[in-house]
Parts: sequence; structure tokens; C-alpha cells
Amino acid sequence: MTRFFTEPQNISNKTIRLDAEDTKHIRTLRLRPDEQFVVCDGNGTDYICQLGERDDHTVAEIKEQRKSIGEPSVKCRVFIAYQKGDRLDFATQKSVELGVHEIILFESERCIAIPHDIPKKVARLQRIAFETAKLCNRGIIPIVSAGGKFANAVDEAVNGSDLTLFFYEAEDQLHIKDVLEKHFSSPDNDDNHAVTVSVITGPEGGFEPHEVDIARSRNIPIVSLGPRILRSETAPPVALTTIMYQSGNL
Amino acid sequence: MTRFFTEPQNISNKTIRLDAEDTKHIRTLRLRPDEQFVVCDGNGTDYICQLGERDDHTVAEIKEQRKSIGEPSVKCRVFIAYQKGDRLDFATQKSVELGVHEIILFESERCIAIPHDIPKKVARLQRIAFETAKLCNRGIIPIVSAGGKFANAVDEAVNGSDLTLFFYEAEDQLHIKDVLEKHFSSPDNDDNHAVTVSVITGPEGGFEPHEVDIARSRNIPIVSLGPRILRSETAPPVALTTIMYQSGNL
Repeated sequence: MTRFFTEPQNISNKTIRLDAEDTKHIRTLRLRPDEQFVVCDGNGTDYICQLGERDDHTVAEIKEQRKSIGEPSVKCRVFIAYQKGDRLDFATQKSVELGVHEIILFESERCIAIPHDIPKKVARLQRIAFETAKLCNRGIIPIVSAGGKFANAVDEAVNGSDLTLFFYEAEDQLHIKDVLEKHFSSPDNDDNHAVTVSVITGPEGGFEPHEVDIARSRNIPIVSLGPRILRSETAPPVALTTIMYQSGNL
Repeated sequence: MTRFFTEPQNISNKTIRLDAEDTKHIRTLRLRPDEQFVVCDGNGTDYICQLGERDDHTVAEIKEQRKSIGEPSVKCRVFIAYQKGDRLDFATQKSVELGVHEIILFESERCIAIPHDIPKKVARLQRIAFETAKLCNRGIIPIVSAGGKFANAVDEAVNGSDLTLFFYEAEDQLHIKDVLEKHFSSPDNDDNHAVTVSVITGPEGGFEPHEVDIARSRNIPIVSLGPRILRSETAPPVALTTIMYQSGNL
């Protein structure tokens, strides 16, 4: 079913007011009167709807309400270093498909492409996150934001996370499976307990050793994603896949 | 270290003859005489080399020989339905990063983009596989080939595989984790035993129900990759990630 997101204030008891963009989209779909579509409140609830009686198609009639199935039980925040070209577009799209909760961009020593206009870059990636969330059954639109310098990003990752992982391609001892199996088999992390995991991944050239030392000094595990060198835009969705897999969200 | 692939016949006892393309590449690197690089035989062995005495730089001196670290213990064959635009480029690049052994393209009912010139398409993807294998530490160059129609591809997947998985977005009962945990915890599959896993993924519009029936009739498990709808080019690397993770290759 086609999926739209709306603001909570557009939802009343029996109907949902659609905005201009969604109204235009719905017209192009040429839905039959009894054909259903989903309007999601962006907060984990789906409303199964049909078009209302009004000819302008700006109102959807609610037929049923249910929990969005696409939201994982684990909240993943991905901290991604600025990267060249369309690498961030890719990392954003794939991370949203894989169930990311929040994407935070940051500046790392070896970044070769920090955008001049960061708000414009964030807005572009937010648009990609929005479009992807509609297509892949998400119950929220993951927020994209700019997290400043490396040290700020590391602080933000650690604060409020049950687990933070720092991926470093020169690490060959601590494997992601060891860390995740241990974490998700802990009796503290049953399914009723929301778990927040933060993931930090580097730019094209990887992290500087002194950046790794900063992460280590905050007691963040330095983790390997395997013996093959992953491209910088591949690491975030691969890390997310392993977390969703191990936590029973795949 | 920069990595090259060579044919076994170029390797003698102490030296390796480099081809014209690699010689050109090596010149652009402006290596110091003592700087090392890797020449891989494409069969799982790396030769650590330095430039030889000759001025034309067409001969590498072997300093050390070791097993390529990038090759997983599990051989994954990915059967990918033809897809539009750059989706196959993407699926190929990411699958090679994630350790795929072989990529086989096939025609499925809902394919909207079967190339007119299939050999040209295969050659393009083979080039992507080659370039990616060099950059991500692989010990082989995964082979890309055309596998014909759906039913042929299914037959080829089943033959010679220890496990075949068919990914279907409408499946919501059998999860990838259940299948892989069971398979890789079996005493038959210890680390000394090479395991071949085949994976079948569909085109943009997914599989037709009668195609799913064909797979089911061959006793292939029909498996979910989670409640979020993955794009057609995302499914192969995500499936590979779960297999590499569960089998201890990540």
C-alpha cells in the first residue's frame, strides 16, 4: 500500500487532512474509492485510510489504526563522517532501509569533503531519509543532523546510549559478533527494554590513530567489520544489518 | 598496500611478471625501491613484492608469500535478477566487498530491464568486481555470469549448494536468523568444511507468486529479510552480511 507521513495535528478522530504534496501524489495514483493507503503519524502508528467523499481529495477517512511494523525494537544512531560525492546519499538511503533511528554527520581529521553549506547538505539527506522511509515501511522519519567536530560527535554518541561501537579498519582483534552477542544476550536487554546503540564510522581515508585513542579513552569498544576493507559508505548499513540481525529485528 | 591481481603463469619462483596495465599503474604510484605491494594470484594467495631492478618496472620481486586474509570460509553465490540503471553496479560492488564468491544474473517475470546486450552488461559488472576486489583485500576475483531464465537459475542455485535461500518480501514467518543459526550450528559445518550457500534475490517489483511456488517445490526455504522493504539492490549485500556474520567471517 502507498504510504504517506503526516503531522499529528492533521489527524482527527475519523479523518486525516492531507497536505498539498500528498494530495497531488494521491491524484496521480488514480485510486479507486475503496482502495486503501497508509498514513503514518511518524511516531510509530499507521492509519489505514480510504479517500473521503470530497472531490478535492484532501481528506482521508481512517478505516483502521495499527502499530507500524517497520520499527525495530532497538534504536540505532549512526554517526557518519562527511564523505565525497554521493556516498552520503547512499549511506543515508541504506541506513533508513536498515532501520536507523537517527543519522548524525561529523567532521573527522581525514575528511576530504566537508560541505561549505552544511544546512543544505543536511536538508538534502533529510529529504532522502523521508522518501526512503515512505517506501520501506518505516513508522518514523529518521532525523538527519550535523554533529560538529569528531570529539563532540563521540560525546554525543556515548551520552544516552546503552552501547557505542567505533568501527576501525585497522582493528583485527575485536569482532562485531563478539560484542553484539554479549550485549544482546545480557538479561538487562530483553525485548521490553528499548536499547539504544550508537555506531561511529569514518571517512574515505579512515580514522587517524589519535582519533581512535580518543574513542578508546571514553571506553568505546574499537570494533572490526571483518578482514575485507569496506568502503566508507558501506560500513553504516553493514553495521546496522548486524545489529538488526543479532537483536531479532531482521 | 596497493594490490594487483595476476594470472598464475606470470608467477615464477622469485619474481612476478606484471602486465601492461599494472605496470602503468605502478609507475603512477612512484613507489620507493623498498616500498611493498601485493600481487595476488586470484586463487587465495598473496605475494608481498617490491619493484625489481629493471627500469621498465615490469617485474616484481617476491619477498613473502601468505594466504589472502580477505577470503571467507563460506562460498556464497548470489543470484540477482536483472534490474534497472545502476542498481546492478551497486549490488555487484557491495557483494564483492561483503565477500561474495560468484554473481549470477537471471531473468525473472517482473524484470523491467533485461539488457539487450547481456555479454556487454556482464563484462561491465565483471570489471566492477575486479576493481572492487583489488580495493577490498579479496584473494579471488568473483566471477560474474548470466544464468538465463528463472527456472535455470533456481536449478543452478540448488545444485552444488549446502544451503539455498530464496528471499521474498511477502514472507513474514521464516526469518533469516532462524535459518542461519540452525545451519551454522550444525556439527556438519565446522570451520574445516567449506560451505557453499546460494542466495536468490528478485527484481524491483519482487517475485511473482508462481516463481515462489517453483522455489518452494525444490525445497528451497522462502526467507524474510525483515519487516522493512529493502530495495532490490540492497537485498544481496544485506543477505551476504548476515551469512558472513553468522558464519564468523565478519
